[in-house]
Amino acid sequence: MSALTRDRGLHYGDGLFESLRIVAGRAPLWDWHMQRLLDGCARLRLPAPDPEKLWRRVRRAAGAQGDTAVKLLWTAGEGPRGYARPPAPRPRLLLQLGPAPVVEPRGLRLRWCATRLALQPALAGIKHLNRLEQVLARAEWCDDFDEGLMLDMHGRVVAATSANLCARIDGQWVTPPVDRCGVAGVARRWLQVRLEVQERPLSPAEVEAADALLLCNALRGPRGVRELGTRRWRTDRRVRELRAAWDAMFAASRSCA
Amino acid sequence: MSALTRDRGLHYGDGLFESLRIVAGRAPLWDWHMQRLLDGCARLRLPAPDPEKLWRRVRRAAGAQGDTAVKLLWTAGEGPRGYARPPAPRPRLLLQLGPAPVVEPRGLRLRWCATRLALQPALAGIKHLNRLEQVLARAEWCDDFDEGLMLDMHGRVVAATSANLCARIDGQWVTPPVDRCGVAGVARRWLQVRLEVQERPLSPAEVEAADALLLCNALRGPRGVRELGTRRWRTDRRVRELRAAWDAMFAASRSCA
Repeated sequence: MSALTRDRGLHYGDGLFESLRIVAGRAPLWDWHMQRLLDGCARLRLPAPDPEKLWRRVRRAAGAQGDTAVKLLWTAGEGPRGYARPPAPRPRLLLQLGPAPVVEPRGLRLRWCATRLALQPALAGIKHLNRLEQVLARAEWCDDFDEGLMLDMHGRVVAATSANLCARIDGQWVTPPVDRCGVAGVARRWLQVRLEVQERPLSPAEVEAADALLLCNALRGPRGVRELGTRRWRTDRRVRELRAAWDAMFAASRSCA
Repeated sequence: MSALTRDRGLHYGDGLFESLRIVAGRAPLWDWHMQRLLDGCARLRLPAPDPEKLWRRVRRAAGAQGDTAVKLLWTAGEGPRGYARPPAPRPRLLLQLGPAPVVEPRGLRLRWCATRLALQPALAGIKHLNRLEQVLARAEWCDDFDEGLMLDMHGRVVAATSANLCARIDGQWVTPPVDRCGVAGVARRWLQVRLEVQERPLSPAEVEAADALLLCNALRGPRGVRELGTRRWRTDRRVRELRAAWDAMFAASRSCA
């Protein structure tokens, strides 16, 4: 049997991941992915990778051409039976590559998920491998929706299953905090640098009443929302501008190569 | 790369496990393990194994001799990128065997863990693969304690990192409910059949003031507690009797073989 059968990532979800896009051998948001991964290692008390070495491996795997989605897993590695890590854990790196997803220009059709996110500050924000809540939420619909929004146990809006949420309310962009559940997305951070984005709890009613909604993740970038519950939105100019800025960032990678 | 690298058990903890003991080819609590596994499959909406076929595989792997600890993983199998399961998931079975742990007769030395259990009714009770909370709690101590007790987010006692807890309070055995977090242990169920065990929330103060404490799991059975915080207990006659009954159940397996 492969050594992976004893990997603590498999047995306990003891590890982290990053999903990122590499265009023509360049990953414009690499440093932020690494900052989050290193933060995750500190939070889970896992040995951290050397970001430079890791970049060389990822870059070599992705090659100098093309538009590639990379999923990087950093697990706690092998261990004996039981929750206790070995005294000197040897993390395992796994890389999975595929074509970057094609992003349709049309707005997204969203739904509300019944599955809620538990409040767990010890795991909030980081991209760890315990993702059953997202799996259960995603199993609530088939292909009739693009994404589902999840609430926490107190009924506050957190995020979509695989993207952060921003809402424009009275001219102000707002995104929910991620200190009790949810993931501190790299594309969310990109938005926070470009826009003044307020972090505060959002109710489902506020989200449905917002002037505009967008979802963002590192593979697909910012995408506008056209439908949620009974609410419909038209394409928003500001979301379109953000989208154009995101695309330009990756196009620049291509022209630099 | 092995197909395991695409397994949803590794990527999301999308799966279940059972840890059980087989003595001389017999597993006295097999049916309860299977009931919990099937309940877990229903809760996670995973295809369930055929318990008869599974038993034949486990029995063949363990052989007709010896005292074996079996860890059985039932994952959602391979899938493409993303949280959505494939339309017809093909679960993967993994079996890991080792010698059954030796249980010392002395009472256990416990501590309180700082890591708390999040409240998540959708995942409570079942033995799923999202175990980072237990990993973080177990990382709080080295070998100076036998186990650590965990509280939920409301400060109620739930269980040890890898065992259920029973406390005798005013002559009544009490164990915390497992409908919002924790695992519905098979050894806990064995206790509930033999004793009248009340299920109700327990505070840390009640646990420290109890007449007796025991931890139980399916690999080690019921074990008395001798120390927690500043509290010390002497060996309890009733815990010793429970231990003897547990040992006799497995000894009977041996003499039947």
